[in-house]
Amino acid sequence: MTTIYGYSVSGNCHKLRLLLEQLGRPYRWIEVDSSQGETRTPEYLAKNANGKVPMLELDDGRILVESNAILCYLADGTQFLPGDAWERAQALSWMFFEQYSHEPYIAVARFIRGWTPLDSPRRTAELPRCCERGHQALAVMERHLSSQPWFTGADYGVADIALFAYTDVAHHGGFDLSGFPAICDWLARVRATPGFVAMPEPAPENAALIEASA
Amino acid sequence: MTTIYGYSVSGNCHKLRLLLEQLGRPYRWIEVDSSQGETRTPEYLAKNANGKVPMLELDDGRILVESNAILCYLADGTQFLPGDAWERAQALSWMFFEQYSHEPYIAVARFIRGWTPLDSPRRTAELPRCCERGHQALAVMERHLSSQPWFTGADYGVADIALFAYTDVAHHGGFDLSGFPAICDWLARVRATPGFVAMPEPAPENAALIEASA
Repeated sequence: MTTIYGYSVSGNCHKLRLLLEQLGRPYRWIEVDSSQGETRTPEYLAKNANGKVPMLELDDGRILVESNAILCYLADGTQFLPGDAWERAQALSWMFFEQYSHEPYIAVARFIRGWTPLDSPRRTAELPRCCERGHQALAVMERHLSSQPWFTGADYGVADIALFAYTDVAHHGGFDLSGFPAICDWLARVRATPGFVAMPEPAPENAALIEASA
Repeated sequence: MTTIYGYSVSGNCHKLRLLLEQLGRPYRWIEVDSSQGETRTPEYLAKNANGKVPMLELDDGRILVESNAILCYLADGTQFLPGDAWERAQALSWMFFEQYSHEPYIAVARFIRGWTPLDSPRRTAELPRCCERGHQALAVMERHLSSQPWFTGADYGVADIALFAYTDVAHHGGFDLSGFPAICDWLARVRATPGFVAMPEPAPENAALIEASA
């Protein structure tokens, strides 16, 4: 059985849970709290030298890392990854956009607000840039979604899953989506897909930090 | 004919030239100097709302962005993209690693040293973190290449091209590769592949800034 090593309140990890649930595919989930250094142990680094979650492990011990690469692997041959080469490339394009232009700002802002102390120097050093670049990413998404229901082709798929994960909790990072109506409609469409599961709420101490950051 | 919009001294853009030359596939190259704001014009933003190079345009006007998504599209069905699903996922994994854990430090360090003034505040604000994280990325690559000749499977392919682009010019960003012998050997193997073309040298003013940063 496929094993996923993941931190349940990480959007990158939740992507995999959402797809696996929607595929109806059995899997084993091993909780790894990356915020507590659990991806930096010698045992973990032996499997993933880059020290990150999520990580997929096959029964024979083979390892695959990087959330969006794992999404593509799990979705290969299913309705969630386009069969057409051009559409598949567009899905990849949005997934690279997510990892380069979206996650480093929208997910990192959430992490700083919810997982670092209120007096962390990262709050003044990094949050303004996260806010600016995150809004730029949301504007790119809004423009695309103003004319199309999904990120790639006619149907919901891996690009939507990749972008949904942190956009749905963008408010944790201080982003107000009310100025992005097409994104809000798309988030609602994703939540209505068959088998959808929401990411768990952050732990009380993280929720309190997010609340105190507002 | 496929058209590429690219800035020739950008590693992300050079990836496409290298693959297209190795595929022997004809293409048109339109030079777009992103360092001079040429990706921020209304005409360019109409094609790519994210305002970045490279960009691929088909004859019918369809657009594909994100360097590594374009690599996968161009390599689809060729020896440069593994046909096996697991190996293809591993190639994608390294390409996501490149865009998340490598390029934002190794390429950005090069940009700051060669494309910003010597008194730019980015030099003190960003270069130390680029140095630390860039070395971490190089260590992950070194470990992998210590037991395998290429990044994915038995053969050279898109993951090698993606990681080669900025690693080969890492010295522009202040990185000394002499402590990474497996990477140095791999760079030499890539340079020896059939049809290899090197990235052009930076313009004299950029080369002078790099020299002055040493």
